[in-house]
Amino acid sequence: MSIQVTVWNENRWKESTKDMYQVYPRGIHGRLREIFEAAGYSVKVALLDDPEQGLSREVLEHTDVLVYWSHIAQHEVPDETAERIAERVNRGMGFIPLHSAHMSKPFVRLMGTTCTLRWRESDDEELMWTACAGHPITRGIPPCVRFAPEEMYGEYFDIPSPDETVFISWFTGGEVFRSGVCYRRGRGRIFYFQPGHETYPTYYIPEIERILVNAVAWAAQGDTEDETRVCRHTAAALETMPVCRDMRMPENEIGREV
Amino acid sequence: MSIQVTVWNENRWKESTKDMYQVYPRGIHGRLREIFEAAGYSVKVALLDDPEQGLSREVLEHTDVLVYWSHIAQHEVPDETAERIAERVNRGMGFIPLHSAHMSKPFVRLMGTTCTLRWRESDDEELMWTACAGHPITRGIPPCVRFAPEEMYGEYFDIPSPDETVFISWFTGGEVFRSGVCYRRGRGRIFYFQPGHETYPTYYIPEIERILVNAVAWAAQGDTEDETRVCRHTAAALETMPVCRDMRMPENEIGREV
Amino acid sequence: MSIQVTVWNENRWKESTKDMYQVYPRGIHGRLREIFEAAGYSVKVALLDDPEQGLSREVLEHTDVLVYWSHIAQHEVPDETAERIAERVNRGMGFIPLHSAHMSKPFVRLMGTTCTLRWRESDDEELMWTACAGHPITRGIPPCVRFAPEEMYGEYFDIPSPDETVFISWFTGGEVFRSGVCYRRGRGRIFYFQPGHETYPTYYIPEIERILVNAVAWAAQGDTEDETRVCRHTAAALETMPVCRDMRMPENEIGREV
Amino acid sequence: MSIQVTVWNENRWKESTKDMYQVYPRGIHGRLREIFEAAGYSVKVALLDDPEQGLSREVLEHTDVLVYWSHIAQHEVPDETAERIAERVNRGMGFIPLHSAHMSKPFVRLMGTTCTLRWRESDDEELMWTACAGHPITRGIPPCVRFAPEEMYGEYFDIPSPDETVFISWFTGGEVFRSGVCYRRGRGRIFYFQPGHETYPTYYIPEIERILVNAVAWAAQGDTEDETRVCRHTAAALETMPVCRDMRMPENEIGREV
Repeated sequence: MSIQVTVWNENRWKESTKDMYQVYPRGIHGRLREIFEAAGYSVKVALLDDPEQGLSREVLEHTDVLVYWSHIAQHEVPDETAERIAERVNRGMGFIPLHSAHMSKPFVRLMGTTCTLRWRESDDEELMWTACAGHPITRGIPPCVRFAPEEMYGEYFDIPSPDETVFISWFTGGEVFRSGVCYRRGRGRIFYFQPGHETYPTYYIPEIERILVNAVAWAAQGDTEDETRVCRHTAAALETMPVCRDMRMPENEIGREV
Repeated sequence: MSIQVTVWNENRWKESTKDMYQVYPRGIHGRLREIFEAAGYSVKVALLDDPEQGLSREVLEHTDVLVYWSHIAQHEVPDETAERIAERVNRGMGFIPLHSAHMSKPFVRLMGTTCTLRWRESDDEELMWTACAGHPITRGIPPCVRFAPEEMYGEYFDIPSPDETVFISWFTGGEVFRSGVCYRRGRGRIFYFQPGHETYPTYYIPEIERILVNAVAWAAQGDTEDETRVCRHTAAALETMPVCRDMRMPENEIGREV
Repeated sequence: MSIQVTVWNENRWKESTKDMYQVYPRGIHGRLREIFEAAGYSVKVALLDDPEQGLSREVLEHTDVLVYWSHIAQHEVPDETAERIAERVNRGMGFIPLHSAHMSKPFVRLMGTTCTLRWRESDDEELMWTACAGHPITRGIPPCVRFAPEEMYGEYFDIPSPDETVFISWFTGGEVFRSGVCYRRGRGRIFYFQPGHETYPTYYIPEIERILVNAVAWAAQGDTEDETRVCRHTAAALETMPVCRDMRMPENEIGREV
Repeated sequence: MSIQVTVWNENRWKESTKDMYQVYPRGIHGRLREIFEAAGYSVKVALLDDPEQGLSREVLEHTDVLVYWSHIAQHEVPDETAERIAERVNRGMGFIPLHSAHMSKPFVRLMGTTCTLRWRESDDEELMWTACAGHPITRGIPPCVRFAPEEMYGEYFDIPSPDETVFISWFTGGEVFRSGVCYRRGRGRIFYFQPGHETYPTYYIPEIERILVNAVAWAAQGDTEDETRVCRHTAAALETMPVCRDMRMPENEIGREV
């Protein structure tokens, strides 16, 4: 069965900049849908203005990976929705916040830090270097992915120490940034990816598309657990845990048992 | 100047168990105050029933390390207070949640996971092994600290992969548990420490006291930053960052500059 | 194409203990071959007494994952062979040292620590707990795998902080041990797995087999690189790196370039 | 007692470049000695041409932190000396390899990877950003340390995932580099620091000096252990480990014991 991707977009844009729809006629979400359907994934699109922001419990239960783009309406996502996403990630859903979604409620909730950074919207050039050899997300990607224009994001990026730092980027103004970072929370996998300002055609770059496709495959390995985890009062494991048996033996053990 | 420790205790107890005050006549907080004052730290005690739960912005600003014990009243701590603690940790305050405080709002907020575990209150015996050589928290501690009684806490402990796993414990019923784990969030340091059930005299054991004293010294190194971190729009670093100069040189550089 | 596994066994045993061949009539290597062939992998067996210890450059080039069992003949493996293995791991080969192979030259070479531990050969009982949720190596494995007999391995296990601690084990004598740990070195993946003393039928336990099969699949994702990595003198990336282009555009760029 | 620093320099230079002694009249080692003595450390200088390369067992036993600069004579350090250094680090000595010492035998031995990178000697400008908030090594250091000239070092830097990535640097040619990384090996602490090409006056820059002084203080916390660690056959911990006692109690325990 193919990977079930939900692409979420707040679908707002800043009126003082070029219209996102000139670059992405079907919205960033439309472009992401094309990318993932071409990769053979099943894609559902959800928008902020949908009922329950398009991220009801039922939608999340049937999502393997949530790809999430947000920018200026972070506050319009209710705390309950952010909590629902974070809880579903802990039970195994992959989560890929893109670009300005570093300030999204669910990402901040999962990180426990402020997730702030330095930025500059100035048609910058970016060189994105692979900093982690052999990572599945970098499969088929050259050691350096160079593209323009993009929005500068710079350190200090206030995130926890990543489980894996996959990409580090260079910008013309002297800045560096950990532009691709992996985390695990419970059974779920998170990949934050910096490229993707709404008025730049970044998501038409083949290397960027490849990274997104790789990232969904990586994040989909989370192994959903049905039950919400709770503190469990248990009897002693020695009293309850079954002994795993030598497969050749009948019920009478030859090996020593306790 | 000595380390400023705030010891926080919800100061509630379960009526169906032995009275905590028989074991700790001045409360767990009173015992912790004795330990830290004997170590030369300055100690302030705060309780859940104090105004603002004893953890106002002013109190937190003057706290280097918050040692936090909670059990059955996690929900009585307002979200705003938990958020205030998490924000202060990110700006440099150390945080040491003890025992059942693994389910405290501030710890869960900083971790981004459920922090659940298996448990059994049964006068167990615990062997706590050092799993990280040369860590400051283990200074002067034997390779194995063995004590009884304690409450069993067992894996799977739903926390993020620790930056450092300092202690792993053994319990008689067949369980293991990562009983001492370190994290960094922003400028702050966190050490979760499992021993400390309210009806057991764990905090009178010298080795346990030593660990607590070491942990406060470790967590106090967070380096407070005054300003809450925000996303910064910046000009190019090349335009604004000063060049660090060879100290021998006058204002005219001999070395090559860009 | 199926995963190419090379199973390596020093094929020595201690004469004062029960003959390993009573438990494993075809040797531990024969049993491991059965497990991996049943999983659909291609298996080659190599032994210490083969030419070049069965681990020539050519064999390693055609190996996706090296599963390595050694105990009393660590010193009989030449430094050059250990170096060849470590170099091949860095270029993408998976490496799974089992049980007493924690003291093998290649594992010690890849870790940079002593890899020592406490041990006791006493028909112990082991409870192996999953300490990392949702990890591919734990797919289909219960939260606790309990089996006997096994040899006790206990902390302090002198290894670097693992990238992932997958299993932590309990033994009857009060010991705990990080019994399944993952590392990355260059493009390669390493999984050290403690169970597998040569006179116990551990490798006939279905849950243990499942872990070994999962581990090979995980370790095979290393992505071999053909060239040995060297320090590279390079011209400026801005002079040599191609610009990744918007796929819709002809050679004339619409987007801004540098 | 002050921290005992041993500064080691291979004391060779490439004849085709400017004489290092014009920049460092007393050698890089002489300059480093000045820095550390000004900080109140005790400093011993050792050179490659000294007996046993100046790094006998006795010298290492009395060293808290080894600061190590090497470039073109890595191969002249015998394997035994490199092994002695690595073993002493595991027993608690701090180790600070500088600049081209990323290819030194002891650093490569401790890492288990190739430690290769991209480089260009071209009077580059470097902007070194702090990527880890509140780290002791960054105490008193601005968020960005900008200086020139320096030699470009660029990713992919083939090192294991650092325990902490403290600095990430920018170079004019489009490159980035993890220029300050921390590791633990056994009881010892390692800090690799990239700045310090022999013909640039980098070690006269106050911010760079401050980092070196901070790094020695951090690396000195390793807590030397006298005995070389070996695999230990042990009786059951339950039979041998003493019970840690409630300090208020006489030899007769009130609490439950096993």
